[in-house]
Amino acid sequence: MKLVPKGERPPQPVSIEGARGVKVAKLVASADDSPTAAMRQFVIEPGGNTPWHAHDWEHVIYVLEGKGALVTDGRETLFSAGDALLVEPDEEHNFVNKGDGDLEFLCVVPLRGD
Amino acid sequence: MKLVPKGERPPQPVSIEGARGVKVAKLVASADDSPTAAMRQFVIEPGGNTPWHAHDWEHVIYVLEGKGALVTDGRETLFSAGDALLVEPDEEHNFVNKGDGDLEFLCVVPLRGD
Repeated sequence: MKLVPKGERPPQPVSIEGARGVKVAKLVASADDSPTAAMRQFVIEPGGNTPWHAHDWEHVIYVLEGKGALVTDGRETLFSAGDALLVEPDEEHNFVNKGDGDLEFLCVVPLRGD
Repeated sequence: MKLVPKGERPPQPVSIEGARGVKVAKLVASADDSPTAAMRQFVIEPGGNTPWHAHDWEHVIYVLEGKGALVTDGRETLFSAGDALLVEPDEEHNFVNKGDGDLEFLCVVPLRGD
């Protein structure tokens, strides 16, 4: 077993093109010998968003704090703390902070998507 | 995409032998067409614990609320809200509530472990 205490892996800025005000912490990843899944914690500042993109793996999401939108093909789905979401493989999408404070969520992917 | 709003799937009692005061909500599972992973939310009441057991898949855990211990071979690892944990395949383990309030955590497993 492995314990990753709160705060041990502070979120780091994401510099991918199209990302604004996004940080990510790899809470459990391949470096931890996780066999199949990686759990990342995203923090998006007010006014920020992840890049518009698609990939052939899914996202399993749990919203920890704040208010946001998942944007898919012409559609905005609003969410807030305590909601869970599934983004399907090959679905174009991004996440947008819609609140006044940080938006924080967990995003679980297969290891090959991390 | 699929949104599972907070509270839509209230945690249900777990009746497996050895479980005390444990409830689980399937936030994202095979019924949602999740391709590889299931995300479950466990709620363990004060004094409660999950069964002592092992299986050939991993747990990727994020602690939402409360204080608990992950018990593995002769060892107790204390954790609290904001911590992440990895339980490896074939590792005997259980979770014990060590606080005065509910212990809540997310537990991600491969679909075959759900």
